[in-house]
Amino acid sequence: MKQLSSTKGEIAGMRAKLPITTFAVGLVLLVQGRAQTTEQIFPKGDLSAAKNHTGKIWLNELSEGDSTFDPSVAMATYDAGAKLDWHIHPGGQVLLITEGTGYYQERGKPVRIVHKGDVIKCAPGVEHWHGAAPNSGFAYIAVTPTQKGKTIWLEPVSEKDYESLKERSVRPNE
Amino acid sequence: MKQLSSTKGEIAGMRAKLPITTFAVGLVLLVQGRAQTTEQIFPKGDLSAAKNHTGKIWLNELSEGDSTFDPSVAMATYDAGAKLDWHIHPGGQVLLITEGTGYYQERGKPVRIVHKGDVIKCAPGVEHWHGAAPNSGFAYIAVTPTQKGKTIWLEPVSEKDYESLKERSVRPNE
Repeated sequence: MKQLSSTKGEIAGMRAKLPITTFAVGLVLLVQGRAQTTEQIFPKGDLSAAKNHTGKIWLNELSEGDSTFDPSVAMATYDAGAKLDWHIHPGGQVLLITEGTGYYQERGKPVRIVHKGDVIKCAPGVEHWHGAAPNSGFAYIAVTPTQKGKTIWLEPVSEKDYESLKERSVRPNE
Repeated sequence: MKQLSSTKGEIAGMRAKLPITTFAVGLVLLVQGRAQTTEQIFPKGDLSAAKNHTGKIWLNELSEGDSTFDPSVAMATYDAGAKLDWHIHPGGQVLLITEGTGYYQERGKPVRIVHKGDVIKCAPGVEHWHGAAPNSGFAYIAVTPTQKGKTIWLEPVSEKDYESLKERSVRPNE
């Protein structure tokens, strides 16, 4: 009987825990749902093997630019802490931030902390860099005219400069 | 005692239903999460008052095109059944489908049923139309060069032609 009563007790315990477990499972599913990104609309693409960045960046060329239809349209997905080197777009670039938090900085100007939903317009010829915040993934769709020339790559962002931004990046929705 | 035993029975019944209810609530929250669209990344924008479409279409100009940075980048969100008139982009257009199911048709070609995740490249000068399927909302980000001329609007898509497509649109993920 002790065995049975113990079993009964276990069943009662399980019953009591079932709503909590079910709710927890629901919550996990919910969080997964909310975490949906454009990555689930368009594939993340291929891990970049280029030498113009530090950290992992995935690229998906959604539409190549050519002489018939100028702008390239591409998705880029950054691991937290990944960042491009300084560079110039001869035809400029528009970035539609679709996920996370990152940095955008033009030469000689303060860094901008940018978030999902922000749109950045970088004028032709302007030296700049962009990358993920140290504590957040980051993704965008980039629209880049190609017929005025290819991207000109400059030096990497110094680790010292990037480290000095860390303090700011923890502030949400700045 | 009858009252009490009835209450006990009700409580037992409620206990039995609680996991189901909790799961159902979790499922609803999950579906809401999954239903997240780019609309939650970028605002839906303003209801179009233009006369070049039937049905409700919302527009959000994310980045205007000009002589410095050519392509316009805009989000469009369609009610089920909303559709643009036939038209021509002198500089072409790329559509990144971010939500739902719609139609895309170039003059003289069969209609294409397009889905979230599809990328459509419409060459400069091609007569075409696009719109939502009758049973699905539809949204995209459009990249449209502006410096080769404004969109040329033609006649509406005939209701007869649109109605004839209805049968096809119910097939998911065609």
